[in-house]
Amino acid sequence: MTWQPFLPYNAILCRYNEIATKGRNRTLFESALADSLKRNLANAGPIKVINEHGRLFVIPTQPKETFTPEDIQLFRDVIPTVPGISSVSPGFMLQPTLEDIENAFDKWFPTVMDAFRAQKPMPQPTYAMRARRANKQFHLTAEEIEKYFAGKVLAQNPDLKIDLKNANLVVEVEIRFNRAFLSFERIQGAGGLPAGSGGHVLALLSGGIDSPAACFLMMKRGCTVDFVTFHSEPYTPPEYIDKIVAIARKLNTYQKRGRLAAVNLLDAQLEIRDKCKSKYRTVLYRRFMLRIASQIARIFGAKALVTGDNLGQVASQTLDNMATIEDASDMMILRPLLTADKLDAIAIAEKIGTFDLSSVHIPDSCTVFAPDDPATSTRAYHVKNDEENLNVEELVQKCLKNTIVINPKTDKRHPLEDLTTNKTFVPQGT
Amino acid sequence: MTWQPFLPYNAILCRYNEIATKGRNRTLFESALADSLKRNLANAGPIKVINEHGRLFVIPTQPKETFTPEDIQLFRDVIPTVPGISSVSPGFMLQPTLEDIENAFDKWFPTVMDAFRAQKPMPQPTYAMRARRANKQFHLTAEEIEKYFAGKVLAQNPDLKIDLKNANLVVEVEIRFNRAFLSFERIQGAGGLPAGSGGHVLALLSGGIDSPAACFLMMKRGCTVDFVTFHSEPYTPPEYIDKIVAIARKLNTYQKRGRLAAVNLLDAQLEIRDKCKSKYRTVLYRRFMLRIASQIARIFGAKALVTGDNLGQVASQTLDNMATIEDASDMMILRPLLTADKLDAIAIAEKIGTFDLSSVHIPDSCTVFAPDDPATSTRAYHVKNDEENLNVEELVQKCLKNTIVINPKTDKRHPLEDLTTNKTFVPQGT
Repeated sequence: MTWQPFLPYNAILCRYNEIATKGRNRTLFESALADSLKRNLANAGPIKVINEHGRLFVIPTQPKETFTPEDIQLFRDVIPTVPGISSVSPGFMLQPTLEDIENAFDKWFPTVMDAFRAQKPMPQPTYAMRARRANKQFHLTAEEIEKYFAGKVLAQNPDLKIDLKNANLVVEVEIRFNRAFLSFERIQGAGGLPAGSGGHVLALLSGGIDSPAACFLMMKRGCTVDFVTFHSEPYTPPEYIDKIVAIARKLNTYQKRGRLAAVNLLDAQLEIRDKCKSKYRTVLYRRFMLRIASQIARIFGAKALVTGDNLGQVASQTLDNMATIEDASDMMILRPLLTADKLDAIAIAEKIGTFDLSSVHIPDSCTVFAPDDPATSTRAYHVKNDEENLNVEELVQKCLKNTIVINPKTDKRHPLEDLTTNKTFVPQGT
Repeated sequence: MTWQPFLPYNAILCRYNEIATKGRNRTLFESALADSLKRNLANAGPIKVINEHGRLFVIPTQPKETFTPEDIQLFRDVIPTVPGISSVSPGFMLQPTLEDIENAFDKWFPTVMDAFRAQKPMPQPTYAMRARRANKQFHLTAEEIEKYFAGKVLAQNPDLKIDLKNANLVVEVEIRFNRAFLSFERIQGAGGLPAGSGGHVLALLSGGIDSPAACFLMMKRGCTVDFVTFHSEPYTPPEYIDKIVAIARKLNTYQKRGRLAAVNLLDAQLEIRDKCKSKYRTVLYRRFMLRIASQIARIFGAKALVTGDNLGQVASQTLDNMATIEDASDMMILRPLLTADKLDAIAIAEKIGTFDLSSVHIPDSCTVFAPDDPATSTRAYHVKNDEENLNVEELVQKCLKNTIVINPKTDKRHPLEDLTTNKTFVPQGT
């Protein structure tokens, strides 16, 4: 919770990572970000996005002239999870004159100070202004503006200390050609690239903490993410799919849409149980998951698979086993959490709101016939040798036949076959 | 720089991530960590590592009884980059009696307070003790110990405030069966898993910021990392290899050893320039790099390739191009920085000391004949089509013939062929 007050702001200034906007991608990037802002801030009512020289301004549309406290709370809650944004400041869009800026400052800075002083315990207040003069014709330089306001502030608040590096009260002023902007607050965004500006991937979503966090990291780099999950009904309960639908629905709040394919892996698992070495079971399950996921990715038009793999965390994630499992896929596999610490993954899951959903314990397909003695260090040729007892291609086709595609928003479910037999039908999430 | 004083500590308590030590891996993990501590703290003179119930204690060996200020500075500098350690506390190993703990506390806490008060500006001092009673027979509970010392401390320092959550003065006490431990300072480690506890990988090391950071992240998950780099002599200067050797040498301070293979890619580049579409050049270069790296990985015994790839950062790192490039490799490719922000990679590079080494600008093989119009969105089948104009296998063999293996420590260089023709010769870095 911030101590910042809810002022009647009439605009938000949105900053994004300049590095990502080099060259030809800039327009694509900015329009994807504007779309993303409109989608994520929809609950604040109709808004308009103004794209102006490396900045996006969000303003309410008529008849609404300022944002409400509820709107501002929404920005504070939602912005930290919006990919592509480095930070935003709710503030006041003004005429580009010193008089206008000073009026707004005099009117609202005391309220900001009051809110600051209401903190218990109250830290030592330290102040800095960061002025930026994009319009070089403005009669004061950035430094002159900063000094002018510092003088005022110190006269009115003798206990305040100037601290240009680590101030806990930072006022920002931007003076542009056709407007000025004054703000007292900066909300950190998620960084990265805006949703929809990258490619299309298919993520393996499980009941654990990691895979939803991995999905979010891909979205943070601009990717559109479809989902696939594996169950073993009737050995796993129908609640398992409901759990994954809820996670997919939550993840879809960070992107335009993402479909969920739910695959019944049981046919493959039964044959693996009956015909292969028990110590290889986990690795063989995962080899089938990748084969099936690769096929679904092609149907969905995705270019890569994404997993929540984390090197060395559990038996199936040793380097050896990862290599043995990947060997079964002819698609590129991306692992955003590869070297993350468990606490990092948990922190992401909590931030994006999937942690509680994932923490509901429901058995998934990995636990079905799980061996007591999983091999931690397999070689692909050993496992492949064992796999020769199976009719791999037939089992993959059987599992694909037992796959449904779910729209996480409506929970509408269709057989995957509808997509392959009738190409005009594409049940995308919305 | 910490404000903490240099006290005559007689031990370091070392904490590691409990999650990583489940089951059978525990012994492997702890002995790898003990090795790693001995190697990293070698400059503090001979030390002994005591492994005791989920903790490692480091003590100086006779005749040295306490650590010197230089030793303590070394711990503060080195520990934050040691994989596998969550934190360490230099402190006092004592008899497990209240009397001994109290004597040490009375003797040294005033010196800690003095050092704290010498800070300019001095923050409000806030205090907390964290007591941990592993020996449940000890006559006071953890809470009773904390209260007992809080009473003393407040009587002597009336300006001190108790803050159990965010204290800037934290005293830690551990009471075990055969010893107690008292400390005033906690140094954060790098987290992750200890060097040498994971698998063996080969990393593509370039002149940029990202790839050394990617190598460090792999080491942080316990992997042993060998290196391969690509030059185009005489189109690239010999200083390029020297730069990479310096980076590899720095990276080797975080692991036991890592060899560097330096490949002359020029033969392949000349043919690609002459026979393929210029827009595919960058992608084709990288396809050859992966093919050659896969072969070297097999010779070195590595199980996977590691790259500094970062999704969407530059033209060759779009999802499409990554997939087209990966298509040429039959080895698993790991990308620790896949979804990292550029600033994260820079922060890692600065922490591990490779940033300045990488910032020296020397042309690398990627810039040789670099096209003005690199394709950002390739398909593997288009590129493969173009590649049919080349004798791929012959070019790979030519480049492998022009590969030398360097020991980064001694800078000794041998042809790669020595490893394949005479299997007994393995010039490992030491």
